[in-house]
Amino acid sequence: MSTTSPHLHLFVSLSEHGHHEAAWRLPESNPHSAHSAEHFQYVARLAEEAKFDAFFLSEGLAVFGDVRQGPTTRLEPTVLLATVGAVTTRLGLIGTSSTTFADPFTLARRFSSLDHLTNGRAGWNIVTTADDLAAANFNAEHLPPHAERYRRATEFVEVVQKLWDSWDDDALVVDKAAGVYAQQDRVHTIDHEGQYFRVRGPLNVARSPQGRPVLIQAGASEDGREFAARFAEVIFTAQPNLDEAILFAKDMRDRIERAGRDPQSVKIIPGLAPVLGLTEEEAQAKEERIQNLIIDKFALQRLSKWLHVDTEGWDLDGPLPESALPSEDDVNGMKARFSLIVDWANRDQLTVRGLLRELAGAHGHRTFVGTPTQLADSIEEWFRAGAADGFVIQPQALPTEFELFVRHVVPELQRRDLFRREYRGTTLRDHLGLARPDTVRPG
Amino acid sequence: MSTTSPHLHLFVSLSEHGHHEAAWRLPESNPHSAHSAEHFQYVARLAEEAKFDAFFLSEGLAVFGDVRQGPTTRLEPTVLLATVGAVTTRLGLIGTSSTTFADPFTLARRFSSLDHLTNGRAGWNIVTTADDLAAANFNAEHLPPHAERYRRATEFVEVVQKLWDSWDDDALVVDKAAGVYAQQDRVHTIDHEGQYFRVRGPLNVARSPQGRPVLIQAGASEDGREFAARFAEVIFTAQPNLDEAILFAKDMRDRIERAGRDPQSVKIIPGLAPVLGLTEEEAQAKEERIQNLIIDKFALQRLSKWLHVDTEGWDLDGPLPESALPSEDDVNGMKARFSLIVDWANRDQLTVRGLLRELAGAHGHRTFVGTPTQLADSIEEWFRAGAADGFVIQPQALPTEFELFVRHVVPELQRRDLFRREYRGTTLRDHLGLARPDTVRPG
Repeated sequence: MSTTSPHLHLFVSLSEHGHHEAAWRLPESNPHSAHSAEHFQYVARLAEEAKFDAFFLSEGLAVFGDVRQGPTTRLEPTVLLATVGAVTTRLGLIGTSSTTFADPFTLARRFSSLDHLTNGRAGWNIVTTADDLAAANFNAEHLPPHAERYRRATEFVEVVQKLWDSWDDDALVVDKAAGVYAQQDRVHTIDHEGQYFRVRGPLNVARSPQGRPVLIQAGASEDGREFAARFAEVIFTAQPNLDEAILFAKDMRDRIERAGRDPQSVKIIPGLAPVLGLTEEEAQAKEERIQNLIIDKFALQRLSKWLHVDTEGWDLDGPLPESALPSEDDVNGMKARFSLIVDWANRDQLTVRGLLRELAGAHGHRTFVGTPTQLADSIEEWFRAGAADGFVIQPQALPTEFELFVRHVVPELQRRDLFRREYRGTTLRDHLGLARPDTVRPG
Repeated sequence: MSTTSPHLHLFVSLSEHGHHEAAWRLPESNPHSAHSAEHFQYVARLAEEAKFDAFFLSEGLAVFGDVRQGPTTRLEPTVLLATVGAVTTRLGLIGTSSTTFADPFTLARRFSSLDHLTNGRAGWNIVTTADDLAAANFNAEHLPPHAERYRRATEFVEVVQKLWDSWDDDALVVDKAAGVYAQQDRVHTIDHEGQYFRVRGPLNVARSPQGRPVLIQAGASEDGREFAARFAEVIFTAQPNLDEAILFAKDMRDRIERAGRDPQSVKIIPGLAPVLGLTEEEAQAKEERIQNLIIDKFALQRLSKWLHVDTEGWDLDGPLPESALPSEDDVNGMKARFSLIVDWANRDQLTVRGLLRELAGAHGHRTFVGTPTQLADSIEEWFRAGAADGFVIQPQALPTEFELFVRHVVPELQRRDLFRREYRGTTLRDHLGLARPDTVRPG
């Protein structure tokens, strides 16, 4: 079942009260969500009741944008995932973490620790960091160039994998009588010496319940796709429409095959940001209500960040001023998101205001406004068309839109035999239908 | 009460099943403790039932020594503290974390996140890392010299404090109607440019419930004492006997005063590693039982690490071979522990075997073998003599010795009005009687 029906993950952006940028202004929104264990634990429990694969956290290494615009803070993901993991028993726990300003020993240890403490539920969404503001918090004036970030990320993940494999599965024997806690020849230094890292190992955590935490990847640039083809077990992607999603899935499966891996073993799961109503009219009224809470000034500032251009003074009712934009080649960071937004504005002939509204709900991911049945139809259509192995659900407001999803969409999918009614296993790998990897010894 | 009676913290060494190096070999010891959420949550709940100030985790950045000797793994402390924090509501949560191979933005964020998620219960035990094996996991061939590690630590803590203060307490307003989430003039870049770090800030976490997590420090070398005098709110120290503890406390209070701080505001809490019996005979039999589980070969290896000398071939029944030892000046790392051990062997005229037995239970901290009443007497004596503001209890076996402490020693202290019966507040600062710090704006 887990391999023949869509996978569902709940995305929780650490700096929002739901995925819509104005969700925090809704009357029903909890003003303290961004720093509240109870808020995150509540939505995680809902996800587990609905038998979701995982709870999926975003990341960000600086305060981006104007602090007036909404929540710009972000609790540290692994600490938050442990907080959520302690009150759930089956739900997968995926944390986004950057390779750009971290070291592989610490990162390997944090995710391995999480995997142990949650009995095999950890996943790492690998990103590189594409922002000078983040660089300035980590001793760096400017970001390394895009290609170098991916070279570093590649070596980083290699080191992390070696560390996760540095204790064999049978290393711990705990033979009290003989006085042997672990077998010496089952624990290995890794002695990694590369371009960016020198790491001796072994990790100071034994091999974790899943063997390795699940690897997720979201970069969609050329470098990002090659990286995903090599490492990703799950690909999280922004796909605004069915045709492009099919093309993307086909391209990725080709790349995965060329990288010598089984294309069907990798799960491709686009983001999907719903606003639900029990009738179409209700859904549209709800969307209108939240869209009207957008503050143009801040939305323009956010657009400026994505497009790498100063948007001040742009005419909200005019078209996107193409001549002001850089080319993708000149963009150092989130290249794919840049192109996706420019293409979207052109294809749908959007005004700047129209684009801001399209982006407010999901920042480039696909939004959906409609009834639970319509959403189930759409999920089924994408899944059957080979456009998606599932979805990362990004409720535009939390917890309200997610409560509706759980109450109305999940049962509809279950009726269609398109979503599990019970967990079949206990680990995130079990939910995803991914094999537990063997240890690999280099050389 | 919290300022006029001893403070009690539970120390949990991540790589042991209790503080005695052979505790894992006891028949009643759980073979899976080192990687088990349930184990750590169980002892934390016991500590909270007993109204302890805090649960205090050790740290280590490599696999040290022979993996056969016992648990050498260590889960990542902040992830583990979050796991424990989610099942407790009052207990303070102190994590040891090194400044030597970390960056201040990430560390500030992790402890601030923990403080938010636990409603004000986080503390950071600041250490520098004194081991080449750790260095080899972090791109470094060798450790920086002792004095440089402390210079770096000093700047590191300064940056962390600035980041913790980068959001004013009243920065978050969450004014939905006006569309103002935070006040722009209440959030500050720190623009730190020092010898080791350049950090722009602000932190991407709002000021935490305690204002700042509590700062703990354990270094006892000259550099360590000066560092503690400047920063520590709690001093964790190894003091083998009453006279030395009194001298240490006096020395530290003098230094704290010279540093311009109130000496009475800093809590000095030595380690104390008990083996308890309801009669003296029972306690001694229990100690003999656990001491007999020591494996000499591994104990000698550990001694080698503390003394920075090859101990292979040493005569177990002879005295410590003084001529083989380096001088403290030549020791780069854990200088104070080195001298403490050498002095101990000399003062008590111990054989090498005798020294190994003295060290096995608490690695240089004070051990105690006796009845609950005798232990309560000793705690009272040290407290009234000004030798200690409390103790970090390091049960030689977990959870068994801690269960005895909670069941028998805590009620005895309560009868003497020497320990709280209920928490008076909710934060770690409340339990310690420490004021919530104001934000400090440099310049």
